[in-house]
Amino acid sequence: MSKKNRLRIIPLGGLGEVGKNMMAYEYGKDIIVVDAGIMFPKNDMLGVDYIIPDFEYLKKRADKVLGLFITHGHEDHIGAIQHFIEDINVPVYATPLTRGLIEAKLHRNGSQHKAQMKTVQAGGATKIGPFTIEYFHVSHSIPDAVGLGITTPAGLVVHMSDFKFDHTPVDGWPTDFAKLSEFANRGVDLLLSDSTNAERPGWTPSEKVIGPAFDKVFAEAKGRVIIATFASLISRVQQVADAAAKHGRKMALAGPSMVDNVKIARKMKYLNIPDEVIVPIEQALNMQNHKVVIMCTGSQGEPSSIVGRLSAGTNRQFDLKEGDTVVLSSHPIPGNEETISKTINRLLRRGAKVVHDGIAPIHVSGHAAQEEQKLLINLVRPKHFMSIHGELRQLMRHAELAQQLGIDPKDTIVVENGQVVELIGKKVVLGERIPGDYVFVTGESIGDIDYGVMRERSQLARNGILLIDISIDKLTRRLRHDPEIITRGFVSPEDAETLLPEIRKLVLRMVHDDGFDDEKDIINAVKSYLHQQTKRRPMVFVTLSKA
Amino acid sequence: MSKKNRLRIIPLGGLGEVGKNMMAYEYGKDIIVVDAGIMFPKNDMLGVDYIIPDFEYLKKRADKVLGLFITHGHEDHIGAIQHFIEDINVPVYATPLTRGLIEAKLHRNGSQHKAQMKTVQAGGATKIGPFTIEYFHVSHSIPDAVGLGITTPAGLVVHMSDFKFDHTPVDGWPTDFAKLSEFANRGVDLLLSDSTNAERPGWTPSEKVIGPAFDKVFAEAKGRVIIATFASLISRVQQVADAAAKHGRKMALAGPSMVDNVKIARKMKYLNIPDEVIVPIEQALNMQNHKVVIMCTGSQGEPSSIVGRLSAGTNRQFDLKEGDTVVLSSHPIPGNEETISKTINRLLRRGAKVVHDGIAPIHVSGHAAQEEQKLLINLVRPKHFMSIHGELRQLMRHAELAQQLGIDPKDTIVVENGQVVELIGKKVVLGERIPGDYVFVTGESIGDIDYGVMRERSQLARNGILLIDISIDKLTRRLRHDPEIITRGFVSPEDAETLLPEIRKLVLRMVHDDGFDDEKDIINAVKSYLHQQTKRRPMVFVTLSKA
Repeated sequence: MSKKNRLRIIPLGGLGEVGKNMMAYEYGKDIIVVDAGIMFPKNDMLGVDYIIPDFEYLKKRADKVLGLFITHGHEDHIGAIQHFIEDINVPVYATPLTRGLIEAKLHRNGSQHKAQMKTVQAGGATKIGPFTIEYFHVSHSIPDAVGLGITTPAGLVVHMSDFKFDHTPVDGWPTDFAKLSEFANRGVDLLLSDSTNAERPGWTPSEKVIGPAFDKVFAEAKGRVIIATFASLISRVQQVADAAAKHGRKMALAGPSMVDNVKIARKMKYLNIPDEVIVPIEQALNMQNHKVVIMCTGSQGEPSSIVGRLSAGTNRQFDLKEGDTVVLSSHPIPGNEETISKTINRLLRRGAKVVHDGIAPIHVSGHAAQEEQKLLINLVRPKHFMSIHGELRQLMRHAELAQQLGIDPKDTIVVENGQVVELIGKKVVLGERIPGDYVFVTGESIGDIDYGVMRERSQLARNGILLIDISIDKLTRRLRHDPEIITRGFVSPEDAETLLPEIRKLVLRMVHDDGFDDEKDIINAVKSYLHQQTKRRPMVFVTLSKA
Repeated sequence: MSKKNRLRIIPLGGLGEVGKNMMAYEYGKDIIVVDAGIMFPKNDMLGVDYIIPDFEYLKKRADKVLGLFITHGHEDHIGAIQHFIEDINVPVYATPLTRGLIEAKLHRNGSQHKAQMKTVQAGGATKIGPFTIEYFHVSHSIPDAVGLGITTPAGLVVHMSDFKFDHTPVDGWPTDFAKLSEFANRGVDLLLSDSTNAERPGWTPSEKVIGPAFDKVFAEAKGRVIIATFASLISRVQQVADAAAKHGRKMALAGPSMVDNVKIARKMKYLNIPDEVIVPIEQALNMQNHKVVIMCTGSQGEPSSIVGRLSAGTNRQFDLKEGDTVVLSSHPIPGNEETISKTINRLLRRGAKVVHDGIAPIHVSGHAAQEEQKLLINLVRPKHFMSIHGELRQLMRHAELAQQLGIDPKDTIVVENGQVVELIGKKVVLGERIPGDYVFVTGESIGDIDYGVMRERSQLARNGILLIDISIDKLTRRLRHDPEIITRGFVSPEDAETLLPEIRKLVLRMVHDDGFDDEKDIINAVKSYLHQQTKRRPMVFVTLSKA
């Protein structure tokens, strides 16, 4: 089989969710990229702000990259655009709302580079190099999301990013079933599909079910209602606005990203909120409590979010009041459960009532569950199936579902990021492995923390450090002064009081009586003494000067 | 009201689950203590092995403490006995199985002190000082668990520790409804009850529902079945043994705590496993795969557990084999979701099939859900209700349930650990606040890490450290050699290569040209340079010697 007629499918981005944050499609000398999002750090990724995919492979081939195609405006799909266009400044294709959200985000972050934005429409198509990219509407928890039909001479690939089959979505615009059937009739060589909820049986409830839950919250709340969600969960804003109008409350927005996104979505008519329902936050804070609903960020308990700060009593613009009802309108992202729980407890301690998705249906998932995933496969009837947007556990489950529907196990593909998959001669085979890793972003530095640094941090964090500064007289070979010892994160000051004198004695004995060759000898002796005394192993450093 | 006829109820143990790990009851000059368990550290408690309640209050009154009463043999109720009896060596009252598990644990840990164990029976009672303690059976996920009726001249308190109302428990011994009714007839002044599942509607399923799920796993498994759970989940062992017998497999146990506990429970007839069903692990490893089931620890993905080591390929005794089915028979403890997910992905990557409670009913909770909690309240008909065994969110929810059943809000009590509650003149009032905090245990050191140390660790972990050793010639006031710089957890070696020479130059300039007063000046200059360059703030240390 000639390698010329070969499409290479490349999921990028570490041991996280496969292909969620970035995928590349390479045909001959041309490449297109789908999405450029961020991941949030796991609990053991110490001191990391967020994570972007490693797109070194693309950087080295920057002149081959024709464009970046964005499926929807959530952080995990647009959050890394800023970094991407700094290295690979190609046109960015997005639907109107997605484009608006991207531009607002780049502006907020003061991005140096101006993105070359191209507006596309669900139902439309872009021909670029050997690629024809058809955009079709999918329902998700944000309006104007699309899936992609990608045609090259190697065949037709359907790239189904985040989606659900909501028959009654907030914006009234269901997934484009007709287009999926049309693809099926043309013959789909490979379907890639969102595996987020592959472990969840049944059908994800419609966004509509949230309405009655909000009604109940609004009806019962005697004071202010404060609703936290993601700033990009545009559909939820519509639902809160509807409930506000119904219950005679005014809605205010807190936080720049929330304010920005709603402004854009309203201007573009993706949000239908009458002017008289919205008031500026400053005005809301001076209104009667039962006349107000405030939307803000912090549904994951993030300490720097508004709800995080309210729970800690450190929010600048306003404080919690007795009688406030705080609604956390999202589901815990795995790993955030502990932080969210802590935040809930703190809000309760400050006298708020807290409504979360564990006790009321004030959130539904934006992702297809098993029955929807099966429906997609049966609508599209692909020759090959590749599960994306999940960790191995979800990907394998999703592949099992495909197999239950009759797709041959050898035609279902489960890979991890960095594993190239090739569509060649209407067959799918595994290609090479390229670096498909995380890049950690902290402050303004990108990628200068690696796993080695992280391991050191974890060592520092586990047991702390102990520094000993020793100064020896060259002639007499005796200490010029008592060893100076500093500890951090090792023992409490009280325990240090008994431990440090013993270490001083130990060093003294080594220098004056036992002798030693170099710093290492002292380090080892101190380490073994500390382990014997405390069963712990702090990092020990010795600085030795002879004069 | 005379303070003489006053019962003080004291929940101990930090901002965790109230009264879960330890409660004290103080009447006049006498104290009894209920349970002495451990908590596992939260993700932000860096380098902590486990946590015990702060019982300083009891230590100071050690001569007043009459006994320690244990409700059941789970770690969060018995794990701190070892530390408790080192300070307060009073008799420990427990039912036969609980006693056996405690003794085995003390023995395994090489405890120096011998516990003065007293065996009690469900249905029996102990009179000690002003206290009469009646033990009544409750069903839970371990046999031989009890609740306590505590009578003093101040009134009758029912202490309902972990329980569920399982009508078909594995050991065939349901909760003692008759005793609860008897208490109700006598008049219960205060009911304390387990709030773990206060956010869960309905009724917790019986342990019995696991049977069919295990049947399915055993029927479908082509290779070995490896079932991970807590070593103290004795009921689960019975269920696995039953499934093994039914499906013609032999059961082997891996790990000392699992082996110990099963040995004791079998000897005491709390487990009914025929000899021919159990084989030593060494023998199981040489049998045909489809003839074997192995029970071990690690259902929470703990890296040091057998499943944790199997997933990492570092288990000494045996490795995973292609075709193994690993069953994680427990529910993620909040905060462990990420670790468990990582473990599942690793097991899958090594070719195992993984069954967890997200995809099959191979675990049920051991704790009462809302309908059971309501039934308890209506059975006991207490004058006052205090929710225990939960964080604030569960406690408040549980109190709401009690209020729905007609208990006056002023008679429902929600407090946090360290807040004394007093039963006096048949009324319940809040007493003083005493230290009710965590004590962190690491290695062999108890309590020598405090929040200050933890904060330092978190700082170390966030940005790492940078040490600079400077040696200056006293006479010339010039550097005797280039500054030595060490970093850990700050930047990758490549980035250090460009950054460290700049810092050397900066120090050189300060020493030779600009001048400085002391180490602090250098530290500040370096810090501000690093922040400017990297937007990060490592801990900076300078050792300065002049010679």
